[in-house]
Amino acid sequence: MSPLMLFGKACRFGGRVRFCVVKPLACLFSSSSNMAKSKFEYVRNFETDDTCLRNCYIVVRLDGRNFHKFTEQHKFSKPNDNRALGLMTRSAHSVMEELEDIVIAYGQSDEFSFVFKRTSNWFKRRASKLMTHVASQFSSSYVFYWKEFFGEQQPLLYPPSFDGRVVLYPSNRNLRDYLSWRQADCHINNLYNTVFWTLVQKGGLTTAQAEDRLKGTLASDKNEILFSEFDINYNTESALHRKGTTLIWEKRDETVTKRMKRPNEEEKDVAVTRSRRRVQAKHCDIIGEPFWEEHPDILEDDNC
Amino acid sequence: MSPLMLFGKACRFGGRVRFCVVKPLACLFSSSSNMAKSKFEYVRNFETDDTCLRNCYIVVRLDGRNFHKFTEQHKFSKPNDNRALGLMTRSAHSVMEELEDIVIAYGQSDEFSFVFKRTSNWFKRRASKLMTHVASQFSSSYVFYWKEFFGEQQPLLYPPSFDGRVVLYPSNRNLRDYLSWRQADCHINNLYNTVFWTLVQKGGLTTAQAEDRLKGTLASDKNEILFSEFDINYNTESALHRKGTTLIWEKRDETVTKRMKRPNEEEKDVAVTRSRRRVQAKHCDIIGEPFWEEHPDILEDDNC
Amino acid sequence: MSPLMLFGKACRFGGRVRFCVVKPLACLFSSSSNMAKSKFEYVRNFETDDTCLRNCYIVVRLDGRNFHKFTEQHKFSKPNDNRALGLMTRSAHSVMEELEDIVIAYGQSDEFSFVFKRTSNWFKRRASKLMTHVASQFSSSYVFYWKEFFGEQQPLLYPPSFDGRVVLYPSNRNLRDYLSWRQADCHINNLYNTVFWTLVQKGGLTTAQAEDRLKGTLASDKNEILFSEFDINYNTESALHRKGTTLIWEKRDETVTKRMKRPNEEEKDVAVTRSRRRVQAKHCDIIGEPFWEEHPDILEDDNC
Amino acid sequence: MSPLMLFGKACRFGGRVRFCVVKPLACLFSSSSNMAKSKFEYVRNFETDDTCLRNCYIVVRLDGRNFHKFTEQHKFSKPNDNRALGLMTRSAHSVMEELEDIVIAYGQSDEFSFVFKRTSNWFKRRASKLMTHVASQFSSSYVFYWKEFFGEQQPLLYPPSFDGRVVLYPSNRNLRDYLSWRQADCHINNLYNTVFWTLVQKGGLTTAQAEDRLKGTLASDKNEILFSEFDINYNTESALHRKGTTLIWEKRDETVTKRMKRPNEEEKDVAVTRSRRRVQAKHCDIIGEPFWEEHPDILEDDNC
Repeated sequence: MSPLMLFGKACRFGGRVRFCVVKPLACLFSSSSNMAKSKFEYVRNFETDDTCLRNCYIVVRLDGRNFHKFTEQHKFSKPNDNRALGLMTRSAHSVMEELEDIVIAYGQSDEFSFVFKRTSNWFKRRASKLMTHVASQFSSSYVFYWKEFFGEQQPLLYPPSFDGRVVLYPSNRNLRDYLSWRQADCHINNLYNTVFWTLVQKGGLTTAQAEDRLKGTLASDKNEILFSEFDINYNTESALHRKGTTLIWEKRDETVTKRMKRPNEEEKDVAVTRSRRRVQAKHCDIIGEPFWEEHPDILEDDNC
Repeated sequence: MSPLMLFGKACRFGGRVRFCVVKPLACLFSSSSNMAKSKFEYVRNFETDDTCLRNCYIVVRLDGRNFHKFTEQHKFSKPNDNRALGLMTRSAHSVMEELEDIVIAYGQSDEFSFVFKRTSNWFKRRASKLMTHVASQFSSSYVFYWKEFFGEQQPLLYPPSFDGRVVLYPSNRNLRDYLSWRQADCHINNLYNTVFWTLVQKGGLTTAQAEDRLKGTLASDKNEILFSEFDINYNTESALHRKGTTLIWEKRDETVTKRMKRPNEEEKDVAVTRSRRRVQAKHCDIIGEPFWEEHPDILEDDNC
Repeated sequence: MSPLMLFGKACRFGGRVRFCVVKPLACLFSSSSNMAKSKFEYVRNFETDDTCLRNCYIVVRLDGRNFHKFTEQHKFSKPNDNRALGLMTRSAHSVMEELEDIVIAYGQSDEFSFVFKRTSNWFKRRASKLMTHVASQFSSSYVFYWKEFFGEQQPLLYPPSFDGRVVLYPSNRNLRDYLSWRQADCHINNLYNTVFWTLVQKGGLTTAQAEDRLKGTLASDKNEILFSEFDINYNTESALHRKGTTLIWEKRDETVTKRMKRPNEEEKDVAVTRSRRRVQAKHCDIIGEPFWEEHPDILEDDNC
Repeated sequence: MSPLMLFGKACRFGGRVRFCVVKPLACLFSSSSNMAKSKFEYVRNFETDDTCLRNCYIVVRLDGRNFHKFTEQHKFSKPNDNRALGLMTRSAHSVMEELEDIVIAYGQSDEFSFVFKRTSNWFKRRASKLMTHVASQFSSSYVFYWKEFFGEQQPLLYPPSFDGRVVLYPSNRNLRDYLSWRQADCHINNLYNTVFWTLVQKGGLTTAQAEDRLKGTLASDKNEILFSEFDINYNTESALHRKGTTLIWEKRDETVTKRMKRPNEEEKDVAVTRSRRRVQAKHCDIIGEPFWEEHPDILEDDNC
């Protein structure tokens, strides 16, 4: 007997036990399609539509899960580990090459944001598809390229994970403010971490003492500590650490030599120039105007 | 000057060019919190709440992206590659151990479904967090454990990806019908593939001829071809291929010996028994009643 | 020239003013249908799907907007105005008769909840359609039937409004708890209001004094005040006020006499009995089991 | 005993009947608040957040339900009934005055669209509240003002209803295209209806013949029929019918005389001028630029 055939059932809702016939589900939720492979196919109708509003930028941001513990176990150097940052960027690069319509990506620490163009129709703008694909491609790339950055000395001990979210931004201003928010966050955290670890590593403070020392200090105070006590000018520290990493597409003309034969001609080498777009990493300010003036193709006009 | 200060702007909407003052955004969208680290923080308010309806089972299903090409490039054996199925199960296992509240998982081919218990409050039931975390953990595990299953002969050529979705099921019946739908799909596809590749590999047909031969055939016809022409009884074929893989938690009593010392006693070996739950893989029917009667703890009562 | 033709536009994003050609929108967002009546029809694609999850009860609750002021201006009697409660029930009745698939409705004070059966497919389960239709039908009925309840002495001064929301409940227990929540709320408020207005109207206290007197009192204290000071037994007060109003469908056999003529017979009077379902109002407890045992048809089985 | 206390329950899921103890729900879903008035209050957590994406125009459109039948029963004149159009506008006017942040409304036939400004925070941008309030206020107003437009000869026979929806538009261009879509629809329908009813009312055709005559005709054909056969120039027909009704806010200086007394002065009449905003109805083209150039305050800048 099929598992969904009629069966008598002792029901008790309330007080009395009464026997009732439970109708097979296949009746209640009939599949809309005649092509149903099984009577269970009605369950597809429980899926909900999560199409992103049109004409908005779609941002997918990934964050490392339990990365505090992960960085300890894998002996990341403090306050920044260039191998880890390189691996993040390599993984983001892989995402951009695999997924269509990402126009810019920005990463710092254990997070990376990917921006799909506002008119993108990739995956029919389905939020769940967009964010899981980004999370999946990034995570498999992180493990795949680990050895390129950490070599044999520091093996990957277990598969790490990243969670993601989707946020929509209706205007160029909103999108730029989102990216500015992340870069301002990078700045604030990196300044703090730089002073904190300098106090510990060079100043001989315990982590508790360093924390105490920094309580309530302003950005100017932190710059001053670095400069006066350790002779460090924060503004000349690594741009990678201060500004994070911005990935964009850049068009380059590539000239290759091809051996060709035209009718009535001898075979010969011909120089062929093609415009190729490639992902480029930048470590510059993206809050101010200059970056956007230099790269006018990233954003689409608001008036659409 | 800060990038968000007042600036005169040549606006043209319609026809006339007029100069207007664009108000800094920080005014329009003030952050709700006084703890805002920067004036850009208002962009957080564009995030939307995607909490899953309470008291429903949350199913996350992953599907391999472009796996047709991936299986070709990595020389998967046809119609089933046990190394690949083992790797899928290993990765799903890793997901179940890392994420709380998954009560059952079911996989076949290049897909895997994970069921969170209906009263789960993990990640506050946020759909985006649930599905991206599952997709990420599964994908990084797939690359991490690749070598365990494929050895040195078949290296992983590039990082693969999986996309995911979330579906909610309000009743035990709906959830069971969902799992039945996936297992019925496994059966239908595996029967087809088994006959198809038998016709090709043992029957000497081309793939086009095999396709032609199977056009319009029923399950009974396919069973008959296998039995009468190739002496194969489909029902005794591998349960892994016919039924897919179901992962559940099983409690086991584990007894270990510990050296202990109690007050006024000599130190001695003591047997300590603990109940441990472990992920178990099954390759059995989950459509009928027996499986659910044997594992009454998987589902929670509907009357809640 | 059509308003969407190409036009040169002075753009300024960032600093430079540059002239650019804005593409007509009709290009960017082409309508999916060839039947488009105009090039503007792409805007339909911005509508989002808000289908309610299947197999869940759909509750639409309406609440009066600014009814504190409305009751003052229309001189509602305190603590309960039977004309107003009658009008609410009349309007809810009108909603039940106009909309399919409402199985039970419950109202108290200036609110009313409508429950659609879990398998309803009315309006394709689109939340926006369901709640706006309920809100609209209720509101137009409220004005339409005003005079039936308030007569000529108390004209309606302006059109009132109600806002609404949709909530889904996956199980019978959840739905019953929702209705219990509203009836418990009715009880708590009515007990408070009854004592409050008795203290004012019969006890001669000012409203401020009455409020003060009731601060921190329990239900038992309130019952005691009514009983010992005013000789009122709260439990024998009007069930309409204590329990609110529950609307359900009841089947009744209706017998009408019809004059009929059959072939080869004389014309004669024939009694015709038909089963008719009618909306019935109840003012009883719906928290306990008895109500649900007496009306087993309201809820559908959870096991579906 | 409280209805939610423990009770033994005959459960049968699958085949065996077994007795189990159903835990009271209050345990499973504890209320987050200590202020819970009853143990049922956990059901509030099933409400979902439907906040509209920020910085987008929020459009609520209402459509008459079953208005074909309604217009027949209330003897609306064909093809346009000015009493009915006046009542629609009066009701929309009432909505604009009661709800904050509506910057423009557009209506034709039995529909009306209301546009909330993109930075509106009314009702915290909750879609359900916005659309139900608009639907409710419009519907109660329609009944309330009926007599002002239809007088005593044509009483309202029953309470009508309108359903609504919410659509978001991220840019000025999208919003203008939405309004253009509705006005283009008005034009297309009104031209058709005008010719159709002229053929019937003046040309003596049956409705079936008129329908036949118009099959496949273009706008130019319809204009030609009106002009050559009935001497009607469509472009000089009523703008109300051809263009629909646009409601906007207009600021007017109002001067009133107030009797005032200042210190050390005699009491005297003083002219006080105040800027008041009032809803104004227009029947003009809103597709082209001129309307928007004349009313630059309706739209907010895209660059925010």
